[in-house]
Amino acid sequence: MALIGAGRIGKIHAANIAANRRLSLACVVDPFNGAEDLARAFDTTAADVDRVWSDPAISGVVIASSTDTHLDYTLEAIRAGKHVFCEKPLDQDVARAARVDEALVGSDQRVLLGFNRRFDPNFAALQRRLAQGEVGRLETLHIISHDPAPPPATYIKTSGGIFKDMSIHDFDMARWLLAEEIESVFASAAVLIDPAIGEAGDFDTAKVVLRTVSGKLCIISNSRRSGYGYDQRIEAFGSGGMIRADNKIETTVQKWTEVGAAADSFQNFFLERYAEAYAIEMDHFADVIEGKALPLADQRDGTCALVLAEAADRSARTNQVVNVRRSDLA
Amino acid sequence: MALIGAGRIGKIHAANIAANRRLSLACVVDPFNGAEDLARAFDTTAADVDRVWSDPAISGVVIASSTDTHLDYTLEAIRAGKHVFCEKPLDQDVARAARVDEALVGSDQRVLLGFNRRFDPNFAALQRRLAQGEVGRLETLHIISHDPAPPPATYIKTSGGIFKDMSIHDFDMARWLLAEEIESVFASAAVLIDPAIGEAGDFDTAKVVLRTVSGKLCIISNSRRSGYGYDQRIEAFGSGGMIRADNKIETTVQKWTEVGAAADSFQNFFLERYAEAYAIEMDHFADVIEGKALPLADQRDGTCALVLAEAADRSARTNQVVNVRRSDLA
Amino acid sequence: MALIGAGRIGKIHAANIAANRRLSLACVVDPFNGAEDLARAFDTTAADVDRVWSDPAISGVVIASSTDTHLDYTLEAIRAGKHVFCEKPLDQDVARAARVDEALVGSDQRVLLGFNRRFDPNFAALQRRLAQGEVGRLETLHIISHDPAPPPATYIKTSGGIFKDMSIHDFDMARWLLAEEIESVFASAAVLIDPAIGEAGDFDTAKVVLRTVSGKLCIISNSRRSGYGYDQRIEAFGSGGMIRADNKIETTVQKWTEVGAAADSFQNFFLERYAEAYAIEMDHFADVIEGKALPLADQRDGTCALVLAEAADRSARTNQVVNVRRSDLA
Amino acid sequence: MALIGAGRIGKIHAANIAANRRLSLACVVDPFNGAEDLARAFDTTAADVDRVWSDPAISGVVIASSTDTHLDYTLEAIRAGKHVFCEKPLDQDVARAARVDEALVGSDQRVLLGFNRRFDPNFAALQRRLAQGEVGRLETLHIISHDPAPPPATYIKTSGGIFKDMSIHDFDMARWLLAEEIESVFASAAVLIDPAIGEAGDFDTAKVVLRTVSGKLCIISNSRRSGYGYDQRIEAFGSGGMIRADNKIETTVQKWTEVGAAADSFQNFFLERYAEAYAIEMDHFADVIEGKALPLADQRDGTCALVLAEAADRSARTNQVVNVRRSDLA
Repeated sequence: MALIGAGRIGKIHAANIAANRRLSLACVVDPFNGAEDLARAFDTTAADVDRVWSDPAISGVVIASSTDTHLDYTLEAIRAGKHVFCEKPLDQDVARAARVDEALVGSDQRVLLGFNRRFDPNFAALQRRLAQGEVGRLETLHIISHDPAPPPATYIKTSGGIFKDMSIHDFDMARWLLAEEIESVFASAAVLIDPAIGEAGDFDTAKVVLRTVSGKLCIISNSRRSGYGYDQRIEAFGSGGMIRADNKIETTVQKWTEVGAAADSFQNFFLERYAEAYAIEMDHFADVIEGKALPLADQRDGTCALVLAEAADRSARTNQVVNVRRSDLA
Repeated sequence: MALIGAGRIGKIHAANIAANRRLSLACVVDPFNGAEDLARAFDTTAADVDRVWSDPAISGVVIASSTDTHLDYTLEAIRAGKHVFCEKPLDQDVARAARVDEALVGSDQRVLLGFNRRFDPNFAALQRRLAQGEVGRLETLHIISHDPAPPPATYIKTSGGIFKDMSIHDFDMARWLLAEEIESVFASAAVLIDPAIGEAGDFDTAKVVLRTVSGKLCIISNSRRSGYGYDQRIEAFGSGGMIRADNKIETTVQKWTEVGAAADSFQNFFLERYAEAYAIEMDHFADVIEGKALPLADQRDGTCALVLAEAADRSARTNQVVNVRRSDLA
Repeated sequence: MALIGAGRIGKIHAANIAANRRLSLACVVDPFNGAEDLARAFDTTAADVDRVWSDPAISGVVIASSTDTHLDYTLEAIRAGKHVFCEKPLDQDVARAARVDEALVGSDQRVLLGFNRRFDPNFAALQRRLAQGEVGRLETLHIISHDPAPPPATYIKTSGGIFKDMSIHDFDMARWLLAEEIESVFASAAVLIDPAIGEAGDFDTAKVVLRTVSGKLCIISNSRRSGYGYDQRIEAFGSGGMIRADNKIETTVQKWTEVGAAADSFQNFFLERYAEAYAIEMDHFADVIEGKALPLADQRDGTCALVLAEAADRSARTNQVVNVRRSDLA
Repeated sequence: MALIGAGRIGKIHAANIAANRRLSLACVVDPFNGAEDLARAFDTTAADVDRVWSDPAISGVVIASSTDTHLDYTLEAIRAGKHVFCEKPLDQDVARAARVDEALVGSDQRVLLGFNRRFDPNFAALQRRLAQGEVGRLETLHIISHDPAPPPATYIKTSGGIFKDMSIHDFDMARWLLAEEIESVFASAAVLIDPAIGEAGDFDTAKVVLRTVSGKLCIISNSRRSGYGYDQRIEAFGSGGMIRADNKIETTVQKWTEVGAAADSFQNFFLERYAEAYAIEMDHFADVIEGKALPLADQRDGTCALVLAEAADRSARTNQVVNVRRSDLA
């Protein structure tokens, strides 16, 4: 395996490759972020990206570099005959992202797109039990996804906006759980947390209503700041009851005093909350490389989530329901 | 006190009047529903409604008759100089309901409108702690209100529709907690539970997004059937955290077996879930009669909730955001 | 009904008699505690105790006076042909308490002893589900019973000691749930909270191990001060799992902040925690008077709990296991 | 590092050594249990134990072989100048185990004894917060430790009995949390689960009361079969409230149906429940080897727990309180 990108998320992937007995880390590529340090920590070498494309021993590439490089690296990796595990999004532009689809035509290569939440054991159990009909036929879905604290305004400017940067995970989760085509999107968004986010042209708070072709309804709640840690919850209402996944808590310790029972803190952010998910995702990539599984999320899932994000953005800015064209979500 | 209406909710009020040491039940009026039985059970007499208007010893009237009689009884009671505790709604029609406002001009009489949830100790504590700033400034609000099981289609036909019949409580709760004027309403609704409800021209499932003038957002989720009892939950997200009220459970008993911990059932429906609220509400009416308090919810709150319900209905039927005129919510 | 004793617990019983449609309060007797005020509040009269014995319209007597008067009032009430609902204990002395048993020989009169916890809906549900075999055959039992705050040392002096005053409820609960004869008692007790309690010759903290004839084991934990409200929990471990009853909490409101989720306070003390139990207990007394039920707890249950309390006290003072004579618990 | 013992727990330690960047696994020793397979899985070699003693590159030895070999391997490792991480117990015999103490006199080598629960993040957080005085001064302690299902009777015969085999972890936890010398032990034990365990001369259910010199009380509850997974809970009652650690649950998923809310299963057994603890323990051993920390639990802690286990066994068999000699716990 080669790893492109030695930043925060690259480090996570490096550790998970190292800890996975089916994978070994051939090299780390990063012209900017200290590939050497990361390579040394995992007993491997820093390398130029051309080494990755030309080394036949490298069968898979993990792309964890900055977002604007995802698409080019992915297309090069496909040309070089590698399987790809790319952090989301492939690109901020739907039309450009579609080029990955074309590049894969007629190929056995696979692109695993990093929708890490599908690999979280809690959400995965919820999806499995829902699909098995434990609460009957799904009717509506509530997804809460609030970050602990807002990013700096500088990040906001290159983020693509709350819907492409943050809600996109929730759109993917909604598609995965609803298991049905989405017909329309309504979003109401506001700047309630940080005026600088508004000045950057973005929102910091949003509520989205998705509607599927059969009338199933899904609510997504997004906030850039919860004030109480990373809030990642899902409730799925079915004809036979409800199934939900709750937040993870640091420890099981509780303190009881005269003001009542106090639980420990909620896990704070994605590196911690989804630590297990990242390891399982990497193991799944090993399965994909070995031909034992198709990617649980691929480039088309990325495109569909992006289409919904764009529709939500348009809805929030026009205050109107936006219909999603069937062809966009094919 | 006189009680008009000896049905299900009338019986609750009769018991709460009897148990309240500050109130006594002078008579029960109900031409249809066995006023005699109820009167006998509480050591009082059945009476004709004219007796109520003419008896100077009766200072308050509780109106718990069928919805289409609420307005006329309320207006007559006002004319007769009584204080009124009327079950919601005053009327299904906003313009007609406004006549109560006119009738009260220049009077010291009060109309307490039966938005029972404001009296629930859980929601009341949430409102108080929110208003005290325990989680900072309120930003968004989630209200879940799902009934255990759908009513018969015959009920649906005269109910006024899901928004006026069911969501109206949630619109009132939203107004109370948001404490700010609502600017627009979006509703997406569907028939997912019982086709007969659709044939009656109504919906059985709805998600509503309210937006206040300052951009605060509120989601309301309604369903005519939860499959797991009466689901009545609120989450209020503020700048300093979140405060929530959860469902009530029959007992604190849990069973632990190899499939895990199982709690006892959720309380099933409103007579049980809001039993305490009804008693507190009646005690509050005693305060209102004695001039110690203004009604926590009055005819204007009823009108405002009705305006929101009509806006939601229009939104659901047109698939567009409906702006609420400031004058309607004055 | 006549009520003897107008103190804190007498007031509770007066209200429950008044609210019970099958019962009416004929008079209140209390030479010391303002029987007049209480009588007036419930539209009845204060009376001399002789009036109670001689009035044939009074079929039941509720004895809520000071502990040292329980036995004499109970015996007089039996002689006068009344049914008795007496707060526990009948007497601090096992031999004297046994005189109630003798007095009832050949009579249809009943003594309901005020072990209020048996009437708590949570513990009653636990008992019923346990008896129905929901977790198989009962093996061991844990009872936690900690008061919010210690009583003044003056109370301690006349209380009979922690085992007769406090643990006695737990001994009764243990007997009820174990449904089997107890063979031996071991208690380890200490003064950890208030030295004044130790100076009064009593303990403020105790752990008790009961053993039944078939080897079932029960742990009781007592403390005069929890620091977090009234801690009243039971866990029953069976061959097929565990069933437990947890503490009651003031409201369902939770606050989520960066230190985690905080629930509302635990209900603080017995008047609040067992409010429902007292009402149900009084309704049960109506059943007993009407011959529809035998007392759920009677004078023999009182004696058995007292025997266990004495055994625990002896064990704590000698640091030895105390065997309970079969004849004492017959 | 050398690993002695390639069984179930040896495999855990091998994986944790491999995943720890500060440690490397030099060889695996096991004459019986397929050292080769385990060595191959972790890219190392199987070896004879003499190789371990003579290889100067090996600074630490992990002993995870059968209990009857612990003492000899530990003494040999000490003679060979290695640091030792030995699974508990060093030996079933207090006097023999004391030989490790003697062997270490004048040496800088350390013995880390495998009381894995001290490394569990939940219990470690509880201990830290308790020691920091979050609930004031500790008064009493409840430890629940129930296995999911009983071992086969063949295991029982060589196990040393429930107190040395199972409760010993709880005695260590009690000592760690009480942080005070224990004065006496009372145990009541029974055969309630499997008669074969009784025929093997052992108990399957026990309740133990420990008392410290200052009168602090600790209850330990042990059962060989819970029926609902691995039950590992602690409650510590202090002068300012209570702090507790609860069971871990497989996922955060809950299902709500008409019978109420059902959580996911409790984690079933120690390999899963203490997976994190084993990894942290191994990292702690790296600290010990590097001289950065003293063992959190050492041979003397092993001896003290063993003394308490023997006292509990004697108490259960004689039905008397057993005083623990101060010299045994020095």
